[in-house]
Amino acid sequence: MSPLRVGVIGYGYWGPNVVRNLYALEACEVAALCDQNPAALQKARRTYPSLHMTTDAGEVLNAPHIDAVAIVTPVWTHYELARTALEHGKHVFVEKPFTATVQQAEELVELAARKNLRIMVDHTFLFTGAVKKIRELIDKGTLGPLLYFDSSRINLGLFQHDVSVVWDLAPHDLAIMDYVIREKAEAVVATGGSHFNGHADIAFLTIYFPNNVIAHINVNWLSPVKVRTTLIGGRDKMLVWNDLEVDEKIKVYDKGVTVTSKEGVYDLLVSYRSGDVWAPKVDQTEALKAELAYFLDCIVSGATPFNDGEAGLRVVRMLEAADRSLAERGKVIPLS
Amino acid sequence: MSPLRVGVIGYGYWGPNVVRNLYALEACEVAALCDQNPAALQKARRTYPSLHMTTDAGEVLNAPHIDAVAIVTPVWTHYELARTALEHGKHVFVEKPFTATVQQAEELVELAARKNLRIMVDHTFLFTGAVKKIRELIDKGTLGPLLYFDSSRINLGLFQHDVSVVWDLAPHDLAIMDYVIREKAEAVVATGGSHFNGHADIAFLTIYFPNNVIAHINVNWLSPVKVRTTLIGGRDKMLVWNDLEVDEKIKVYDKGVTVTSKEGVYDLLVSYRSGDVWAPKVDQTEALKAELAYFLDCIVSGATPFNDGEAGLRVVRMLEAADRSLAERGKVIPLS
Amino acid sequence: MSPLRVGVIGYGYWGPNVVRNLYALEACEVAALCDQNPAALQKARRTYPSLHMTTDAGEVLNAPHIDAVAIVTPVWTHYELARTALEHGKHVFVEKPFTATVQQAEELVELAARKNLRIMVDHTFLFTGAVKKIRELIDKGTLGPLLYFDSSRINLGLFQHDVSVVWDLAPHDLAIMDYVIREKAEAVVATGGSHFNGHADIAFLTIYFPNNVIAHINVNWLSPVKVRTTLIGGRDKMLVWNDLEVDEKIKVYDKGVTVTSKEGVYDLLVSYRSGDVWAPKVDQTEALKAELAYFLDCIVSGATPFNDGEAGLRVVRMLEAADRSLAERGKVIPLS
Amino acid sequence: MSPLRVGVIGYGYWGPNVVRNLYALEACEVAALCDQNPAALQKARRTYPSLHMTTDAGEVLNAPHIDAVAIVTPVWTHYELARTALEHGKHVFVEKPFTATVQQAEELVELAARKNLRIMVDHTFLFTGAVKKIRELIDKGTLGPLLYFDSSRINLGLFQHDVSVVWDLAPHDLAIMDYVIREKAEAVVATGGSHFNGHADIAFLTIYFPNNVIAHINVNWLSPVKVRTTLIGGRDKMLVWNDLEVDEKIKVYDKGVTVTSKEGVYDLLVSYRSGDVWAPKVDQTEALKAELAYFLDCIVSGATPFNDGEAGLRVVRMLEAADRSLAERGKVIPLS
Repeated sequence: MSPLRVGVIGYGYWGPNVVRNLYALEACEVAALCDQNPAALQKARRTYPSLHMTTDAGEVLNAPHIDAVAIVTPVWTHYELARTALEHGKHVFVEKPFTATVQQAEELVELAARKNLRIMVDHTFLFTGAVKKIRELIDKGTLGPLLYFDSSRINLGLFQHDVSVVWDLAPHDLAIMDYVIREKAEAVVATGGSHFNGHADIAFLTIYFPNNVIAHINVNWLSPVKVRTTLIGGRDKMLVWNDLEVDEKIKVYDKGVTVTSKEGVYDLLVSYRSGDVWAPKVDQTEALKAELAYFLDCIVSGATPFNDGEAGLRVVRMLEAADRSLAERGKVIPLS
Repeated sequence: MSPLRVGVIGYGYWGPNVVRNLYALEACEVAALCDQNPAALQKARRTYPSLHMTTDAGEVLNAPHIDAVAIVTPVWTHYELARTALEHGKHVFVEKPFTATVQQAEELVELAARKNLRIMVDHTFLFTGAVKKIRELIDKGTLGPLLYFDSSRINLGLFQHDVSVVWDLAPHDLAIMDYVIREKAEAVVATGGSHFNGHADIAFLTIYFPNNVIAHINVNWLSPVKVRTTLIGGRDKMLVWNDLEVDEKIKVYDKGVTVTSKEGVYDLLVSYRSGDVWAPKVDQTEALKAELAYFLDCIVSGATPFNDGEAGLRVVRMLEAADRSLAERGKVIPLS
Repeated sequence: MSPLRVGVIGYGYWGPNVVRNLYALEACEVAALCDQNPAALQKARRTYPSLHMTTDAGEVLNAPHIDAVAIVTPVWTHYELARTALEHGKHVFVEKPFTATVQQAEELVELAARKNLRIMVDHTFLFTGAVKKIRELIDKGTLGPLLYFDSSRINLGLFQHDVSVVWDLAPHDLAIMDYVIREKAEAVVATGGSHFNGHADIAFLTIYFPNNVIAHINVNWLSPVKVRTTLIGGRDKMLVWNDLEVDEKIKVYDKGVTVTSKEGVYDLLVSYRSGDVWAPKVDQTEALKAELAYFLDCIVSGATPFNDGEAGLRVVRMLEAADRSLAERGKVIPLS
Repeated sequence: MSPLRVGVIGYGYWGPNVVRNLYALEACEVAALCDQNPAALQKARRTYPSLHMTTDAGEVLNAPHIDAVAIVTPVWTHYELARTALEHGKHVFVEKPFTATVQQAEELVELAARKNLRIMVDHTFLFTGAVKKIRELIDKGTLGPLLYFDSSRINLGLFQHDVSVVWDLAPHDLAIMDYVIREKAEAVVATGGSHFNGHADIAFLTIYFPNNVIAHINVNWLSPVKVRTTLIGGRDKMLVWNDLEVDEKIKVYDKGVTVTSKEGVYDLLVSYRSGDVWAPKVDQTEALKAELAYFLDCIVSGATPFNDGEAGLRVVRMLEAADRSLAERGKVIPLS
C-alpha cells in the first residue's frame, strides 16, 4: 500500500515534533510544510532539505495529492483551516484545543461526518503510558467506583498573548478527565484571576459529573514551581500521577474509606484502610508517535478515533463554559 | 504577681496539648479540668494527679477563683460554653472554628466587648515560625504586591461525624490567609462533593479580595497522600510553604513576571525572571505554647489579641458562605 | 505470674524512653532508677513520683529484689556495670554499642553463659517494622541472593565527646547488616577524617562477606542534610529503605541484571530488567516497646534473644576493626 | 580568520553530541568523521549529508588540512589515536578517561609539550553551570576551608564490557574533585565488588588530601535508583549538589560546627550553627558546547586549557591507584 501523504501547517513550538514523528512513520509521506513565517521554514529546511515548503496554506489545503492535513497553528486559525481541508476532502489532525468556539467545533464535526472524513484532535497525553495505565486501572475496576479527579498543572509561564491559562493548559486535563471518567459532565464552575494582560493567568475549574463524581483542575502560569500532579480517588484504591517523576509516575495506594452502619444505630462509622503502595511500570514510547500512527490507521481503516472531533468538542464546550463562569465569578454553567 | 487561674474544658484530641502547655507556663495555674468522658479524665489523672477534675462544665464556668477558660470541645458546644464563661466574667480561649454560626460569633464578640473580657480563637498556625516568617516577608514587601494565595490541605481522614471537611480543615487556611493577606475578603465560591456521610469530604474554596487578589483552598479527606502546601505569588517574588518539610518549610523564589509595553504598540510583552531560591531559617518553638503565653499577656495587659473574636468571626463568616455556596454548586456568595 | 522487677541505670538521652516503655509493659515493674546526675532524677520524679531513685548504681546492682538491669549509660561504663549486674545474678539489657572492647564483650558473654543469664543489646532498629520487613523479604527469597548492602547515616551532629562517629552511628547499620545478611563478615576497611576534637567525624566502612557480598556504611556528623538510606541489591530484586519517609519507608524494585552467555562466545551479555515498584506496608509499633517485651519474654522462657551478647560482640568486633583500619588509613583488617 | 578544521573519530554514544556542538560553533569546520562501524556513519549521513566520512582513522589522523582531532572512542584506543594525531601535528580533544594507563598519559603529555600542541581531556562536567558555581563559591571563600567531598553516582547499568564501574563513572567525580579541591591528592583506598563479568560493578573510593581533607566517591551500576549527589563540607558553610534536580541543583547551607575551648579547660566544646539555605541560580548553557569553544580558543591563543593532559593524567593516576587498591581489598596506595 502506498503511504498516506500528509501536509503540515504550522512549524512553531509543536510543529517540529509533528513533522519529525510523521517522518519516522513508514505509513506516511510528508508531502508539504506550510508556515507563514519564512524563518520557521528556513529552520525546517536544515533538517528536511527535500521537503516542499510554502508560506501559503492554500497550497497544502488544495493540493490534490495530499490525503490529510495536520494543523499545528494557534487555536483561532483552526476552524478556517480545518473547514477548508475538509471541504477539499482531506482528513484533519488538529492541535488542541479543537476550535475557539463550540459552534465551530459542531460545524466541523458535522462537515467531516457528511464527507466521511476523519478528524483527530491532538490530545497527546491520551497516548502516554501514564494515561493509558490509568485508564486500564479504572477499566479493570482496580480503583473501584470513582469519587474524584483533582489535577494541578502549574508553572511559571509561558504566557500566551491570545488565550488565557484556561485555554492553554486546561485542555490537557479536561481531555484526560473526559477519557478516564467516561461520564457526561453536567456543569462547570470556574474561578480565577487575571493580573497582567487581561487574560486569566490563574484559574480553578470544578466539573460536576453524575453520581457525585467531582473533578477539579488547578491551572496557573504564575507558580514559582512546576507541578503536574493528578489525584484520582476511588472507593477501593486511590492513585497519584506525578508526571514530573521520571521512574514512578503512577502510584496506586491501597487506601480507602470503609463505611459501616451499626445495627439499629443511625450513625455511620467511617474508618480508614491503609496498605501497600504500588508503582506499575509505565510504557515510555513517545506519545505523539503512537498518536500519529493511530491517525493514519484510522484513515486507512475508516475507524473513528476515540479522540475525534466529538471528543475535541466536549473539551471546547467545557472551556467555553469555564469562560462564562469565570466572567461571572464562579457562576454554575450547565453543560446540556 | 500571682499566676492566672485557667480552667480547661475538653480533654479529647487537642485538650492534652493545651493542658501540657499551660502547665509549662509560669504565669498560669491550671485550676480545673472538665470532660464529660470519665475515661478522658482518668487518662489525665495519670499525668496530673493533683489537678481538680470534673465532668460538670458548670463547676469550671462558675468557679469564682477561675480567671479564664480554655474551651477545647466540638464546635457546636462553643457558643454555649463561651457565653456562660463570659457572663461569669471569665476570659475565653476557644478552639477553632470559633462558633457554628456567624450570629453566635457576633453575639460573643459583643458580649466580650461589653464585659471588657478577652476572647482568643485558637488559630495555632498563626504562631508557627513558618506563618510568622511569611507575614514578615509580606510586611517587609519582599514579595511585592500579592497576586494569589493557593493552599492544599489534603490527606486520608480523619472523618468528623459532625462537620464537613470545610469546617474541619479550611479554618486553618482561612485564618492564615486572613492573617497574611490583610484585606477584606469580598466573596466566596465553594464547590465539592460528599461521598459517605452527607458532609462534604472534598471541597474547593475560592475567596475574592480587592485588587484582583485571589485565594484558593483545596481541602480533602479522601487523598491517599498528605499535602500541606501553600503558594503565595507576589509581583516581585513568590513563596512556597511546604509544612511537611522538616528543614526548609519556606522557600522564596526570585521569580516573577515582567511586563513591558513597546512604545507605540498596544501589545504588552510578558516575560519571566528567574533567579536564586532562598529558604530562610524558621523559628521552631511550639506554636501553642507561644499562643497561650500571648493569651495570658493579653489578659494582664488588656491588649486585644490579633486572633481575637473578630478574627474568629471573619473565618466563621467565610465558612458559612462556603456552606451556602456548596449547597448551590458554586454560587458566588458576597461577604458584606 | 508476678511481674519482673527491672532496675534502670542512666536517665540521659535514651533512658527516659526505656523507663516509659517499661512502665507500659504489664509483665514488668520498674523497681529503681539510678543516675549520677541529680537533675536527671529530679526530671524523672515529675513523671514517676513514686519510683525509687538513687545516684548510687550499687543500690540497683546489689538489690536482691531486682531481676534485671537496663544499662542506659555511656559505652565506657557498660562493662563494669554489666559485669557487676551479672555477678549479682541479674539479667542485663544494655545500650549499643555493647562494650568498648572485644575483650570486655567476650568476658561478659562468657560470664552470662556461666551464670545462665540473658544479655540483650539494645539494637532497637532490629525491632522496627522496616527492618523486620527487610529481613522477611530476604528470608522469603524475594530479593534473591544478596549482592550488596549500602547504608548512609549522615546529619549535622550530635558530636559526642567520648566516641567517634563510627562508635556513635555505625552500630545501627552494623547491627542491621548483621541481622539481614546473616553471613560471617570476613574483613573491614575503614577510612575517614577527624576535623575538630580528635575523633573521626566522617567515616566510610567497607565490610567484606563471603560470596562477594559487600557492605558499605557512610557515617558523617558534618552533613548539612539528614540522610538515612540503605540500598540492598539482590540478584532478583533491589530494595531501598529511606527511614526519613513517613509512609513509604521501603520500596522494592523489580529491577535487576540479566547475564546471558552467547553459545560458543566467551563474552557475557549483561542487560537490565525494569518493572514495577512496590512499597509494602510497614508495621508502625514502637520498636523499643517490642524489644523490651521480648527481653522480658526471654527472661521468663529462658530463650536466647537474637540480639544477645554474641550479636553485640559481633558489632563491637567490627567497630574495633574499623578503628584499627582508620588508624592506618584504610588497611584491611580481617575478622577472624 | 578561517575556521579551524576538526576531524572527529568515533560516532557511538557521545560522538554525535561532539559533532553537533562542533557544527554549532562558527570558529570550527567539521572536516571529517571516522567510525569503524558503517552503520554509525550511515546514521550520521542522514543529519550531515555533506560531511566527509570514513571508516579509516588514518584518513583523519594524516589529513594535512585537519588542525585538530576529537577522539570519541573507547579508552583502550585513546593512546594510539592521540599519539598518531600529535605526531602529525594535530591538537587533540579526547574523551575521559584520558588513557588506559599512567604511562600512556605521561607519554602523550610529554609529546604534546614537545610539539607545542594542545591536549584537552573531555571532563564535560567542569563546564556545567553547577560545577562552575561550586568552584566560584569555594574560590570566594564562601564555604571556608574544605573538610570533605562526598559524591554518589549510582544507577542501574549501563554495564561496560571493557571497563569497571570505576573507570566508567568515577572519572567524572575525580575530575570535579580535582577541579574544586585544588590540592594534590596523597593516597587512594578503593573497595568494591564484582558480581557479573569480572569487572567491579560497585566501588567506594577514598582519596586523602593534605590538611585532613578527605574525599569519597560511591559508584554503583547495580542501584535500583539513580543518585547524582555531591556533598561538600566547609568550615563555614556546606553545600549539596543534586544533579538530578531541575531547578535547585546546588544548595548552600549556612550550617556548621563551632568549636570553643573553655578557658583553663582542656575540653573542646563542639556545637552547631544552623541558618538559611540558599539555592543560587545556575547557568544552563550546554556544557559540551562551552568546552569545545574553549578548546578552539586555546588552540588559537596557545593557552593551556585547565582540563589539559596534566589534568587527565591526574585522574588516570587515581584510577590506576584505585585498581591496585581494589585488587588488594582496600590497601592504601600513595600517589607520589
